[in-house]
Amino acid sequence: MAGYNHLYIPGPTNVPEQVRMAMNVCMQDMRASDFPDFTRPIFDKIARLFKNSTGRVFIYPSSGTGAWEAAIQNTLSPGDKVLMSRFGQFSTLWVDMATRYGLDVEVIDCEWGEGVPVEKYAMALKADKNHEIKAVFATHNETATGVTSDIKGVRAALDDANHPALLMVDGVSSIGSIEFDQDAWGVDCAVSGSQKGFMLPAGLGILSVSKWALEAHKTAEYQRTFFSFEDMIAHNDNGYFPYTPATQLLHGLNTSCDILLEEGIENVWARHNRLATGVRSAVDAWGLKLCAKDPKWYSDTVSAIVVPENVDARHVISRAYDVYNTSLGSGLAKLMGKVFRIGHLGWMNEGMVTTALSVAEMSMIDVGMDIEAGSGVAAAIRHFTDTSVQTGTKAAA
Amino acid sequence: MAGYNHLYIPGPTNVPEQVRMAMNVCMQDMRASDFPDFTRPIFDKIARLFKNSTGRVFIYPSSGTGAWEAAIQNTLSPGDKVLMSRFGQFSTLWVDMATRYGLDVEVIDCEWGEGVPVEKYAMALKADKNHEIKAVFATHNETATGVTSDIKGVRAALDDANHPALLMVDGVSSIGSIEFDQDAWGVDCAVSGSQKGFMLPAGLGILSVSKWALEAHKTAEYQRTFFSFEDMIAHNDNGYFPYTPATQLLHGLNTSCDILLEEGIENVWARHNRLATGVRSAVDAWGLKLCAKDPKWYSDTVSAIVVPENVDARHVISRAYDVYNTSLGSGLAKLMGKVFRIGHLGWMNEGMVTTALSVAEMSMIDVGMDIEAGSGVAAAIRHFTDTSVQTGTKAAA
Amino acid sequence: MAGYNHLYIPGPTNVPEQVRMAMNVCMQDMRASDFPDFTRPIFDKIARLFKNSTGRVFIYPSSGTGAWEAAIQNTLSPGDKVLMSRFGQFSTLWVDMATRYGLDVEVIDCEWGEGVPVEKYAMALKADKNHEIKAVFATHNETATGVTSDIKGVRAALDDANHPALLMVDGVSSIGSIEFDQDAWGVDCAVSGSQKGFMLPAGLGILSVSKWALEAHKTAEYQRTFFSFEDMIAHNDNGYFPYTPATQLLHGLNTSCDILLEEGIENVWARHNRLATGVRSAVDAWGLKLCAKDPKWYSDTVSAIVVPENVDARHVISRAYDVYNTSLGSGLAKLMGKVFRIGHLGWMNEGMVTTALSVAEMSMIDVGMDIEAGSGVAAAIRHFTDTSVQTGTKAAA
Amino acid sequence: MAGYNHLYIPGPTNVPEQVRMAMNVCMQDMRASDFPDFTRPIFDKIARLFKNSTGRVFIYPSSGTGAWEAAIQNTLSPGDKVLMSRFGQFSTLWVDMATRYGLDVEVIDCEWGEGVPVEKYAMALKADKNHEIKAVFATHNETATGVTSDIKGVRAALDDANHPALLMVDGVSSIGSIEFDQDAWGVDCAVSGSQKGFMLPAGLGILSVSKWALEAHKTAEYQRTFFSFEDMIAHNDNGYFPYTPATQLLHGLNTSCDILLEEGIENVWARHNRLATGVRSAVDAWGLKLCAKDPKWYSDTVSAIVVPENVDARHVISRAYDVYNTSLGSGLAKLMGKVFRIGHLGWMNEGMVTTALSVAEMSMIDVGMDIEAGSGVAAAIRHFTDTSVQTGTKAAA
Repeated sequence: MAGYNHLYIPGPTNVPEQVRMAMNVCMQDMRASDFPDFTRPIFDKIARLFKNSTGRVFIYPSSGTGAWEAAIQNTLSPGDKVLMSRFGQFSTLWVDMATRYGLDVEVIDCEWGEGVPVEKYAMALKADKNHEIKAVFATHNETATGVTSDIKGVRAALDDANHPALLMVDGVSSIGSIEFDQDAWGVDCAVSGSQKGFMLPAGLGILSVSKWALEAHKTAEYQRTFFSFEDMIAHNDNGYFPYTPATQLLHGLNTSCDILLEEGIENVWARHNRLATGVRSAVDAWGLKLCAKDPKWYSDTVSAIVVPENVDARHVISRAYDVYNTSLGSGLAKLMGKVFRIGHLGWMNEGMVTTALSVAEMSMIDVGMDIEAGSGVAAAIRHFTDTSVQTGTKAAA
Repeated sequence: MAGYNHLYIPGPTNVPEQVRMAMNVCMQDMRASDFPDFTRPIFDKIARLFKNSTGRVFIYPSSGTGAWEAAIQNTLSPGDKVLMSRFGQFSTLWVDMATRYGLDVEVIDCEWGEGVPVEKYAMALKADKNHEIKAVFATHNETATGVTSDIKGVRAALDDANHPALLMVDGVSSIGSIEFDQDAWGVDCAVSGSQKGFMLPAGLGILSVSKWALEAHKTAEYQRTFFSFEDMIAHNDNGYFPYTPATQLLHGLNTSCDILLEEGIENVWARHNRLATGVRSAVDAWGLKLCAKDPKWYSDTVSAIVVPENVDARHVISRAYDVYNTSLGSGLAKLMGKVFRIGHLGWMNEGMVTTALSVAEMSMIDVGMDIEAGSGVAAAIRHFTDTSVQTGTKAAA
Repeated sequence: MAGYNHLYIPGPTNVPEQVRMAMNVCMQDMRASDFPDFTRPIFDKIARLFKNSTGRVFIYPSSGTGAWEAAIQNTLSPGDKVLMSRFGQFSTLWVDMATRYGLDVEVIDCEWGEGVPVEKYAMALKADKNHEIKAVFATHNETATGVTSDIKGVRAALDDANHPALLMVDGVSSIGSIEFDQDAWGVDCAVSGSQKGFMLPAGLGILSVSKWALEAHKTAEYQRTFFSFEDMIAHNDNGYFPYTPATQLLHGLNTSCDILLEEGIENVWARHNRLATGVRSAVDAWGLKLCAKDPKWYSDTVSAIVVPENVDARHVISRAYDVYNTSLGSGLAKLMGKVFRIGHLGWMNEGMVTTALSVAEMSMIDVGMDIEAGSGVAAAIRHFTDTSVQTGTKAAA
Repeated sequence: MAGYNHLYIPGPTNVPEQVRMAMNVCMQDMRASDFPDFTRPIFDKIARLFKNSTGRVFIYPSSGTGAWEAAIQNTLSPGDKVLMSRFGQFSTLWVDMATRYGLDVEVIDCEWGEGVPVEKYAMALKADKNHEIKAVFATHNETATGVTSDIKGVRAALDDANHPALLMVDGVSSIGSIEFDQDAWGVDCAVSGSQKGFMLPAGLGILSVSKWALEAHKTAEYQRTFFSFEDMIAHNDNGYFPYTPATQLLHGLNTSCDILLEEGIENVWARHNRLATGVRSAVDAWGLKLCAKDPKWYSDTVSAIVVPENVDARHVISRAYDVYNTSLGSGLAKLMGKVFRIGHLGWMNEGMVTTALSVAEMSMIDVGMDIEAGSGVAAAIRHFTDTSVQTGTKAAA
């Protein structure tokens, strides 16, 4: 089909040109004497982006799922009690993993579209006088529903209860895109992957851990080799890896970190908010609702848009894909057919958002939805022009 | 700046992914025994795309300007009388070249925004009883003004006058994008370049000539070496070149021809018309005018949009570039500041057009123009949904 | 440093140009309706290359180490008795993993430079009347010592003992390069990675399993999610993956499989033997020995070359790297300083082997070893010309 | 065919990885406000590499042949008398061009294998009391024969005769590789291309001119547009080009200049001499002769190796290409079948030279030549180890 493929799923995200260039490499020796000169700065840059000043970072050739598993295997032991919540496909999968790993999971189920139930966490933690709960899990950004949770609030709940449990956060679709502060929020295991805010192809699981997580690791009894901290630390400390690393992706990661640091991570967050607000203006103008139940939960990286009951959202998505060469995100599990998702994270700007909105409009119209042509794009354009940086002619006037 | 650069100038155009992949090559021997296996099909494919079944094609490492020069050097002689017209920057430059090359140029000046004055050509040719005019020049698509001329009409004028002059056509921004039929229209020298409809980086001049042009070449007296047909023919006939060809670009050209042939050149033309009509709907909705004076001249590859007198179009363009990471085409020469141009040719689809229109709207609003947010995009979306291929849910309903 | 980096380590290997081009992609939706059209043929091609006609193939975003772990987690249970042998760094690491995973490992230690002790395996299996041994592990090609073991022999030992244990084979540095026949040899879990015979960057673990391994999986009690067969099967059966796959590498893998299948896997094996014999001719001409103790164990993918006792092999390696821009493999663990390794697997031809040998000679001479300049290359050249395909002038004569 | 293609022709040369990465770009607007920030440093870097501190540099989308033509069109007039010499295919072609351009060419024919006849030039210039000779042409490096001429000597001849003629030098296969000093040697037009010492794909003609050439341009009467200095200057002065430049190649050129400047151009020259001497040692060891008649003419960028009378060099070349995946240079024109050429310029190091020599040996042996296997490589290795940088173990000893 003619013209570029437009990719507006919540990951893999669009890869910056510089990253793509950086990955167009021939292979190299991962045991070379100067290999550490290449790898060491990458760890430092990631730590800066996570705002992790006291712990360390692990990079696995895997995925976000792999990094979830690494967090469990390395800091907990079979039978440990953990507190989790479930309000979307990815939080559900993490609960599933924890259960399969033999953890004693206390799950709080919420409606899909809500976020981490901070108050209920607070109550559970206060009630846990004996500190049986070893870890509290929180999905920072539930990619399936477009919900961002209050991780700072979870930390406050832990602190208020004076509870020593580890705080495990799934930041796969948040870190590098929206506010995240590992130090300030006391996150012990922050999980991410290469294919979202880091704007790379999938293939890397990134795990940033606090010094307390490293302390917990000493007594963690899970069997592990591939994901083991101990093997990684022994080699990473010298700039190497315990097995052949995915060097090509590391080259890309190095460049994508540079891009994020050059823009400034706070500016990256602000850009995501500005673009996401444009998308939400459009959804409002279309007369549609987000899956997220409350504005406090609106995600700046992905919007899950609910279609009317008489419409199958899969038709919108296939129309966009088959006719307009555009990938929108599908509804997952119980949201299948009920929502389509627009990923607006990563290497994204206003012109890209308007493509996503225009194609969404055309697809919705094509499948017979009652959408006024241009209404959503118009709302986004108004938002962008109302808030655009004041440079150039207009500013000077 | 974050997010992709959006390129909506009338060339260089966006390069398809497959072409980009095809150019990511290491070097090779241009004298290898199997080099002709690579080059010969390229010539054939180009001839098919030009619809040139009787003559031959030349590929120069140069530009469209180089191919203009090749056409003159190889088919004419100093002092030859030629008929030309001038109605935009590129037709003006071609007249300038002919003049500098010592041709006896009869120029018909038209208003910028008009096209080739077919009637005046007809009169001049009929008046030229002695056939002193050796060649008639016509700019098929004037890139500066967004005007497409009637080449078929020029051929008719020649035929009506029973005039043997060569027909020289600048198809740099038309061929491969909008209707062109070298055989049917009797075009003797059809000039193009790599960076427009062929969707490649700049660097190749492409010249497709009729058998009559080859006949004229035998008596053409210009000095030439680099662009000489005779050297090219001697080597091309064996699948080689008289000097090192731009092999990397040839790899790209091979792939871009495949892409165009797979879509079908008539489908390519139809796609360009559909997308251009969307752009023109937007211009109309904005309450603006095109530089092209009459619908018969509207170009399906580029639209030059006239801004109000109190606005400097350069501010719109710089706003789009500086704030929205988008390249729009500037007004050239006497149109500087009076128009901005949207290139909608090459590797282009609906989603890309809506980006161009959205950014144009935002930029116009930002510089203070009275444009209703979303109005242009809405008009384009209506056009696209009204005419979109009837597949999927809606069609089935 | 000027000129290409010469990479002659036993993986990552040199990436073919076509593979590199295939990986120069933008991202795509791994949930798209046509994604299975892309993924399904890859599984089929890999199965053909492993000669696995009855089981299935798993592709993990990980490494060979990850695929080792996947094999254990999915087919065995904690406390299971397994038979292993140790004769180099990688067989040692696999034993280490099995031990850490709580298997009851019966290890047979051999001298480094020897291969799998088939006779001892046979005795142990015959002695195991109660079939307590659940799996037999064999490192097909010990990358650290350049030793290829007799997997067919291990299968014969199992069959002779009429023993139902699974046969687990590490084929990371053999499969795709030297003879391997999963069906004929009854290999139940064949482990490989992307960065050796598959000529890709590191980042994929490839595991090809027999129907018996799939049967064993039903009762395997290890905790697992990331590497779990059950999740993979549920999604792979529809052409998808349980988490975001490393799509960029899958594109490369698809192309590298095509390259191997086009050459013909038996021809690939023959080429590796021819090139390896050239390397061994050179080692002989240098008056040096291989680490491999017996010709039956000589590896066609990597040669570990023993330097005299008064020489530190690391100096040879650093000389090659620092001065001649060439990566040779280092000695690992107890072989550190005692050997340097030449990887001659993957995308390799005669001209590349002569580079490796020439640089090795120059580096050995530079560090003071008594090597006759050109002696090794001469021996290889003689081997290559004596055995080269008889085409062209000489053949015709 | 498996393994890398080995490219040892005297251009196109091997492209550095960084250059290849730099050319993996999407398109951009050549009229953007910040385009000059990209182009201006390129002109500066080229001037530094040519050692041209007083004139200026032109970059054409063309080839070396195009830059030859640009030099003639822009500094001379039809009928001007020029002094040239002919001793190989490329000097012959330049004479042919000058003749076709209507210059009054005084040609001195030399044996192929000799260089510019400096003494005869000196006599002709002294005899030309009326300064009728407007330009002296000299081929710095005759690529067909592997002969480097004494440009400094030609300048001395001009100065001794106190003659104002322009000095036109073909440095296509010398500049960027072997000593060249435009200022010191008083070269008025120095011609080069992208695909030799600049290590890029073919597609650019590079012309560096002195202030005297710019002065001569004012009265040069050739018709020209594409190659005209006046158009180029008018636009280049602002950082732009008169027609769409080959931006992709300019990105590569920018990077290749950086690579050369980082190594240091004098170090680049020294490296070429060291590598070329290695090649010549091999030729000597083979018992063969170079086409170059005298050591003073030996080229450090290309060696044309004469085969015995009973051998057709084309068989050696086709053997190398068909069996060993290696491109050697063919004999051109009267040297067809008599020589094969090894290009040893550009992105080249010791390991690459030994590949070229090894494959040449294998191919010569395969076609029945009486060459001792390894003899040439051995000689080169001895040269390289005798002269290698004294770092590492040996040096420390």
